[in-house]
Amino acid sequence: MPDSAGLTVGIAGASGYVGGELIRILAGHEQVGRIMAFSDNWQGQSVAAAHPKLVAIGASLEFIPFAPSQLAGCDVVFFATPAGIAARHAADLLARERIVIDCGADFRLRDAKQWQQVYGIEHPCPQLLASAAYGIPELFPAAVAKANLIGAAGCYATCIQLAAAPVVKMLAEQGSSEIRIVAAGLSGTSGAGRRTDRHDLLLAEAGNNACAYAINGHRHAPEIIQGIDNYADRVVQLAFVPHLLPLPRGLLATVHIIADGKFVPPETAATALAQAYADEPCISVLPAGSAPQLASVLHTDRAVLAASATGEVAAIVGALDNLGKGAAGQAVQCLNLRLGFNPISGLAA
Amino acid sequence: MPDSAGLTVGIAGASGYVGGELIRILAGHEQVGRIMAFSDNWQGQSVAAAHPKLVAIGASLEFIPFAPSQLAGCDVVFFATPAGIAARHAADLLARERIVIDCGADFRLRDAKQWQQVYGIEHPCPQLLASAAYGIPELFPAAVAKANLIGAAGCYATCIQLAAAPVVKMLAEQGSSEIRIVAAGLSGTSGAGRRTDRHDLLLAEAGNNACAYAINGHRHAPEIIQGIDNYADRVVQLAFVPHLLPLPRGLLATVHIIADGKFVPPETAATALAQAYADEPCISVLPAGSAPQLASVLHTDRAVLAASATGEVAAIVGALDNLGKGAAGQAVQCLNLRLGFNPISGLAA
Amino acid sequence: MPDSAGLTVGIAGASGYVGGELIRILAGHEQVGRIMAFSDNWQGQSVAAAHPKLVAIGASLEFIPFAPSQLAGCDVVFFATPAGIAARHAADLLARERIVIDCGADFRLRDAKQWQQVYGIEHPCPQLLASAAYGIPELFPAAVAKANLIGAAGCYATCIQLAAAPVVKMLAEQGSSEIRIVAAGLSGTSGAGRRTDRHDLLLAEAGNNACAYAINGHRHAPEIIQGIDNYADRVVQLAFVPHLLPLPRGLLATVHIIADGKFVPPETAATALAQAYADEPCISVLPAGSAPQLASVLHTDRAVLAASATGEVAAIVGALDNLGKGAAGQAVQCLNLRLGFNPISGLAA
Amino acid sequence: MPDSAGLTVGIAGASGYVGGELIRILAGHEQVGRIMAFSDNWQGQSVAAAHPKLVAIGASLEFIPFAPSQLAGCDVVFFATPAGIAARHAADLLARERIVIDCGADFRLRDAKQWQQVYGIEHPCPQLLASAAYGIPELFPAAVAKANLIGAAGCYATCIQLAAAPVVKMLAEQGSSEIRIVAAGLSGTSGAGRRTDRHDLLLAEAGNNACAYAINGHRHAPEIIQGIDNYADRVVQLAFVPHLLPLPRGLLATVHIIADGKFVPPETAATALAQAYADEPCISVLPAGSAPQLASVLHTDRAVLAASATGEVAAIVGALDNLGKGAAGQAVQCLNLRLGFNPISGLAA
Repeated sequence: MPDSAGLTVGIAGASGYVGGELIRILAGHEQVGRIMAFSDNWQGQSVAAAHPKLVAIGASLEFIPFAPSQLAGCDVVFFATPAGIAARHAADLLARERIVIDCGADFRLRDAKQWQQVYGIEHPCPQLLASAAYGIPELFPAAVAKANLIGAAGCYATCIQLAAAPVVKMLAEQGSSEIRIVAAGLSGTSGAGRRTDRHDLLLAEAGNNACAYAINGHRHAPEIIQGIDNYADRVVQLAFVPHLLPLPRGLLATVHIIADGKFVPPETAATALAQAYADEPCISVLPAGSAPQLASVLHTDRAVLAASATGEVAAIVGALDNLGKGAAGQAVQCLNLRLGFNPISGLAA
Repeated sequence: MPDSAGLTVGIAGASGYVGGELIRILAGHEQVGRIMAFSDNWQGQSVAAAHPKLVAIGASLEFIPFAPSQLAGCDVVFFATPAGIAARHAADLLARERIVIDCGADFRLRDAKQWQQVYGIEHPCPQLLASAAYGIPELFPAAVAKANLIGAAGCYATCIQLAAAPVVKMLAEQGSSEIRIVAAGLSGTSGAGRRTDRHDLLLAEAGNNACAYAINGHRHAPEIIQGIDNYADRVVQLAFVPHLLPLPRGLLATVHIIADGKFVPPETAATALAQAYADEPCISVLPAGSAPQLASVLHTDRAVLAASATGEVAAIVGALDNLGKGAAGQAVQCLNLRLGFNPISGLAA
Repeated sequence: MPDSAGLTVGIAGASGYVGGELIRILAGHEQVGRIMAFSDNWQGQSVAAAHPKLVAIGASLEFIPFAPSQLAGCDVVFFATPAGIAARHAADLLARERIVIDCGADFRLRDAKQWQQVYGIEHPCPQLLASAAYGIPELFPAAVAKANLIGAAGCYATCIQLAAAPVVKMLAEQGSSEIRIVAAGLSGTSGAGRRTDRHDLLLAEAGNNACAYAINGHRHAPEIIQGIDNYADRVVQLAFVPHLLPLPRGLLATVHIIADGKFVPPETAATALAQAYADEPCISVLPAGSAPQLASVLHTDRAVLAASATGEVAAIVGALDNLGKGAAGQAVQCLNLRLGFNPISGLAA
Repeated sequence: MPDSAGLTVGIAGASGYVGGELIRILAGHEQVGRIMAFSDNWQGQSVAAAHPKLVAIGASLEFIPFAPSQLAGCDVVFFATPAGIAARHAADLLARERIVIDCGADFRLRDAKQWQQVYGIEHPCPQLLASAAYGIPELFPAAVAKANLIGAAGCYATCIQLAAAPVVKMLAEQGSSEIRIVAAGLSGTSGAGRRTDRHDLLLAEAGNNACAYAINGHRHAPEIIQGIDNYADRVVQLAFVPHLLPLPRGLLATVHIIADGKFVPPETAATALAQAYADEPCISVLPAGSAPQLASVLHTDRAVLAASATGEVAAIVGALDNLGKGAAGQAVQCLNLRLGFNPISGLAA
């Protein structure tokens, strides 16, 4: 599709945290010729004004106002926008044979009614949900490779599914009936987005602090259950509690699995992980018993996983950067897979 | 026991983090007349040299070298020392009718063989294990109130038992047979002690980082299983993974309970917590659905607990300061209970 | 003035960071009988809803809507409000013989025209400026002891004046003509207040970051120059650059003084500090060559100061908690001085 | 010198923080064929064991024991070692026509006696000091381009000289006689190296803390004075106080200059910076009045500088990553200049 000068790529929501990472990654992507960074609030300003880390490329790229006509001029459009925005523009772009990759939540769930329950508004284009690929390339490569509409998975959803899905699949194949998952998530505050309506995300309050949140249920839970069902053909019961860390970015998930009332043992988990990701360039499975840390994944597009080595109970731990493999990096990984590029073009894997 | 001038209190390991908190608390305790701060390495120096926060009282209190004869002159001796130290001195002190409160691990487990497996050395005085009270005043008040030897519970062990024990007790009374607990712990790095043999505890490595650790099993697990068994008369299976936060102090635990293969529902957990701690001055049970945060407990001797309010699965979350309610504060709370003082004398509850 | 039940104290702006500290301090103040916590946004909610650390006293104190008639029922009113609010209510309260202590900026400067230049609005009651005491008790005790209107000094202004004023006074007395001060300030983000209109104060941006700011001039500069002139009878030239730290609270200032073109030597600075603060309960002057750290002052109402010990150039370093000695603590210290209470009642000094 | 397979590069001290950055940079450097990572303590282990961020390249590179014979097999040797190590091996390597780039302190000062005063040991090869280039490529390009022995500048020294040297040069050319510099430095804790002999660098103590240090004089001061003298032909008097931030990495310096008793005005500073660095790929001079922040430089090899825009006093602020432009990045920048490579090969500039 792109000519020799490279792809023209649009980023809706380019002033947000995920948008900034998309700019950074795509600016170094060998197949990208032009970036259009959309933001009404920052229009006319250098991208470095919104994203201090882009100081070196800031001089040559300015935000432009969001306009559907401009979107249509892009080969690929990434949406890094609140719920409902991508869904209002996807049908038109798909009709023009553009590729749409949504880093937001609009195309993750398959069921429009469930989507409305979770996000509180009616889905703008329910007819597209069935055709969207769920964007975790390691788990759903065939779908991602051919879809023009990709709903990149949420950050927690990515980490928990990468940790749990291969194990659940192995258990299901071994005949386990009831499977329950307990997942503890830990994430930096950028996961909440660049929003200034919540004082609890201010450094003065979230710094030197930590808390559990969403203890009545997190909105990534339906997406995780759906994804594991699609991958492993088993509907699990999920207990997931996220925790807010005093960190800008980074995400950990620790997962325990109970199959037919018993904890899954370490060997099962370690074997399932090793087999599932042996050849994946964006995933490192550490030796069993190792403990993944954020230092290995911050500012990368890589996930690191490990299961416990001894004892009667398998803990499975995953780490990724919520803005990298958990968002912008994974979205570009989907792009690479969809267009047959080098799988890690532009990425730090 | 103490004369009108107040107790003479000794602190072994006074230069460590728990030791520093003990000095701070006891210096403001109305029943304490004299503090003896033992530390060989810092002897002759002001306590403020080791503990910057003690700058105001530093001028009037110096470290003195550790000596058994000096210990014997104290009415009460707190040990904030590595495994094995308290156990080498307890018998002599008890023979002199002193009160011994160990903030370390020497008197938490009842079984000497298990202790040796966990701590890697032979227990110096196994004959004393049966007589030691396990120091969580809310769960074992009768034992603490009369014991001359108290093994204050570990920080993770305190938080997880406070969260889980009343629920397990209710489930056991309701006839549940197999009970499993999944606990995720999050803690600041002071929990590892003031040690300089581990570069991973340096700010340059632990800062802007987080990780799971001890994923093959944490040494607080046996103590938790024993404590819940003593409180609720039920031996549980425990899956516990701690995580290191980029924080000096503070501890969270999120607990899920599976009874006979099913997740415990929110109402059960919320009811059990509310009933268990209604009159406890050092524990705040928040309304169901609230999420405890470290900001409510840092630099206090208080634990804050809450269970989820809705959904099918109860999450129970606890927060405390690992050096406060998780160590020094709880040890002084034990002292207050043992000697019939105001329960919160000296404490920030 | 107060009856035996203690003072009735009002706090305007009680939901802000300084307001929260005022509640905490005054709730433990032996001379305070009743606290009225004013906040329109949080009215009807527990003070713990806004201030997680007040969980223990939250049940018994709720925010009430701000109303001038209610203010008038207070013996003392603290304002912790944006520029202009205190000044709109002060005249009425003073006419009723109430005591007004402003933690904001309304009564720090003496010149209404300068105030307008700095704060961008016309001063609501310029006639009161001359009668207000500038609230640094160590430097202006006589004025604070008798004023019904006290403008507590800003956080940076407090630290820099405590460090520099005694040295400038000594230099002036020794005959120095031109005196220049270079001050570097470092502060946590709570110094900017509990505001949600600036994304750069979010943990996602201010965490794992640091920067200089206001490099064209900071609004505390005029207040510092005025204060040093009043104390030392010398108009200095001041170069002051603040820096934002990735911390919720705490403030450091490092000061160099150039007198008639030469750096002031260490002995002069050390001597001036030691003499000025020998008997001050809220100030610790460390031995020359020591380096004050935030760990000694966080969550206290104390300042710690030290000058270098050797070399040709004196560095003077001060540390305080911007919400403690830099705001709420100093305001209560002013109250204690004004009403003849124990100088450190309610304070952590 | 290197054959078509690329340079063989040795890194002494490869397990330290600077060593880890050198591995990372050189592993992505197009002119480097082979890396030899020397570390006795970590020999036989993957480089990822010491450096979590190197997880992706860890599998293919192991530490090897330090041995002079192995050093001699390298085309270029970087030393990231304590004082005295590089100096013990440099003469032999230079005799073999190898290139030696010391990230440590051995070849920064020209005077062996001064070096001994600062570092406390006798210099092992004083005869080499005169031939070493001082490694700040922007200030001393001609020397770096031809030297086989390069002493890369210290992190604080780099930032302060980049900020001050062009201004001092302009002032000197304009005829200023006495020039004084006041510099405040702020740095993350990795600047102290990967050492476990100091408990104050533990996260439990340095986290949620900040302090001034070395207030009697910092050992980078002589190097800064010497460098400015070499660049601007003027011996300045320097007052420099560094501050420790609760951050793993990153460095800020804020500089004021007093020429013949007067503060330098903003225009002078802004003009000098803009002229000096107009074409430098590793330096961004921001518009006057901007405030450099760490977010623009962390994990890069770039420095960002700005001067104030208005007022009577110029503040000059610089930011860099102490492990990037302040150490490993600058060392590789020196290599690129010395061997005529692309100036930013391997670098994030």
